[in-house]
Amino acid sequence: MKKLINDPLKVTDEMVEGLVAAFPGLVRKLNGSNVIVRRDAPIKGKVGIIAGGGSGHEPFWLGYTGKGFVDATVVGAIFSSPTPQPVYEATKAVDGGAGVIYILGNYSGDKMNFGMAAEMAKAEGIVSDMCQVTDDVASAPKGSEDRRRGIAGNILVLKMVGAKAEEMATLEEVKSVAQKSNANLRTMGVALAPCTVPAAGKPHFVLGEDEMEMGMGIHGEPGIARMSIKSADEVTDMLTQRILEDLPFEAGDEVAAMVNGLGATPLLELLIMFRKLSRILHDSKIEIHRSFVGNYSTSLDMAGASITLLRLNEELKHLLDAPASTPYFYQR
Amino acid sequence: MKKLINDPLKVTDEMVEGLVAAFPGLVRKLNGSNVIVRRDAPIKGKVGIIAGGGSGHEPFWLGYTGKGFVDATVVGAIFSSPTPQPVYEATKAVDGGAGVIYILGNYSGDKMNFGMAAEMAKAEGIVSDMCQVTDDVASAPKGSEDRRRGIAGNILVLKMVGAKAEEMATLEEVKSVAQKSNANLRTMGVALAPCTVPAAGKPHFVLGEDEMEMGMGIHGEPGIARMSIKSADEVTDMLTQRILEDLPFEAGDEVAAMVNGLGATPLLELLIMFRKLSRILHDSKIEIHRSFVGNYSTSLDMAGASITLLRLNEELKHLLDAPASTPYFYQR
Repeated sequence: MKKLINDPLKVTDEMVEGLVAAFPGLVRKLNGSNVIVRRDAPIKGKVGIIAGGGSGHEPFWLGYTGKGFVDATVVGAIFSSPTPQPVYEATKAVDGGAGVIYILGNYSGDKMNFGMAAEMAKAEGIVSDMCQVTDDVASAPKGSEDRRRGIAGNILVLKMVGAKAEEMATLEEVKSVAQKSNANLRTMGVALAPCTVPAAGKPHFVLGEDEMEMGMGIHGEPGIARMSIKSADEVTDMLTQRILEDLPFEAGDEVAAMVNGLGATPLLELLIMFRKLSRILHDSKIEIHRSFVGNYSTSLDMAGASITLLRLNEELKHLLDAPASTPYFYQR
Repeated sequence: MKKLINDPLKVTDEMVEGLVAAFPGLVRKLNGSNVIVRRDAPIKGKVGIIAGGGSGHEPFWLGYTGKGFVDATVVGAIFSSPTPQPVYEATKAVDGGAGVIYILGNYSGDKMNFGMAAEMAKAEGIVSDMCQVTDDVASAPKGSEDRRRGIAGNILVLKMVGAKAEEMATLEEVKSVAQKSNANLRTMGVALAPCTVPAAGKPHFVLGEDEMEMGMGIHGEPGIARMSIKSADEVTDMLTQRILEDLPFEAGDEVAAMVNGLGATPLLELLIMFRKLSRILHDSKIEIHRSFVGNYSTSLDMAGASITLLRLNEELKHLLDAPASTPYFYQR
């Protein structure tokens, strides 16, 4: 294992410290726990947006903490749900009297721990709600959408939910945006090489020299097909067709389009994939309203990429285009 | 070689196409050549900022084309200087009557080809000048600064030069900013694993299972020492001490601080390095004015990182903080 780290058991703590040292004008850390909150939280009367889960997906989650996005991010150990206590601390830190909403991936550990924190906060009179993002089409069949994992598309949900809360919407209105955006969101990924979790010290799974795995999750969860590696255009086509058919997306739709890198894949390759994605969408008469190409939700040093499409309406376009100011997402 | 590409000889063309497809509101491509120009170029009366060199360093160069930054980026093949013709086309496309300046790395091929384009443009009455960035302290000893390579620090030079030009400064004033910022800029990197150039199909160099190379260039140019891998704190300390001593930076200085990933190194590790960098600077009574942590100038899928420090004065702070709007750098 070749990594620029110190103690493998302290990578999350040290990363959180690094983030706060780099962006003190945007975020701060709660004493004694790996919770990053936007500098000016709590905002009186604003719904607090709380995200979080295991680390190892940087810049997701913590890099999107800030104005117009997430109020507090609860950072678990690598690929591990945070415990209820820091979630509870985060909840108290960002509640401005209008309640908080937890926006999570669809992982049972997160659901349980954030749920317990919600109970603790309720005892103190803080209202909360929860939404679990389920964008990975490869993780469960159509008809079982609620069993799907949340992956890179979560960032778009958080962006829009954050913008809605910034407009001083009610908890119910904010939750409605989360649900609408999740319902119109589809992602699928491909892995070319495994990541190595620092504390484990060896590759998380094995892929042959010439193999790739379609539909793999961002923690190495099994995908739907292992095959010999194909060209960027072929891979992009396979992922995109599956996504398009699933919702389904149709001619005339407007979308946000994302090609997300899993950590070790160069931007050059992501841009080559985006070229093909934009051609497929053009041929399908689907219009791209906004594009995202880069490392948004990674899996340490895993090689590979995912494609996300989000169908937009006027409200979602407005929210996606709204200003945001966080360490790793900035928009006027 | 496992890559999400199509034809290895077309990766640069296809990447350029992907960038333009993703960010049509910010940039456009000149017909028939791999030149990216900001959407609204040429700007009458503004000095045109032209950058460029070999590709494989994404998002550098092309991702920083846009308002407040670079007017035109000339994109060569992987690790290869572009020929004079596209540089000449770029020059004509962005000259607004106030001349252009070429901001390059310190590579002889670039100097020659951009120089020839400058001659061609001169014949048409376009005034130009050139500045070569030389921030890599490992590439030549102190006293021979003009022989040093330009690496990640170039992005900061371009940011400030771009801001200066946006204020409608003269060519001479813009060049002066380039020279002042280059004179106060120091970078050094470490490589943990080689990149693979697509057309070559095999690793660009070999590093042992337990080895790293200090001071390696972003095209795999030899560094100054090969050694067994050390902790993130030790590596950061070695790089930073060398940088601090070289200028030298002193107590009371204000700096921009960058930890740049070379492509395959996760943001988690870069943030852990930044933690140590911020501690060293704090102990040295050097104040961080602005931080940059991420993949700015990469070397395809090379693993490793570089540290850059730029000493600031009031003018440079003002220029660094000025707005910019490009595909991969956005600031209000």
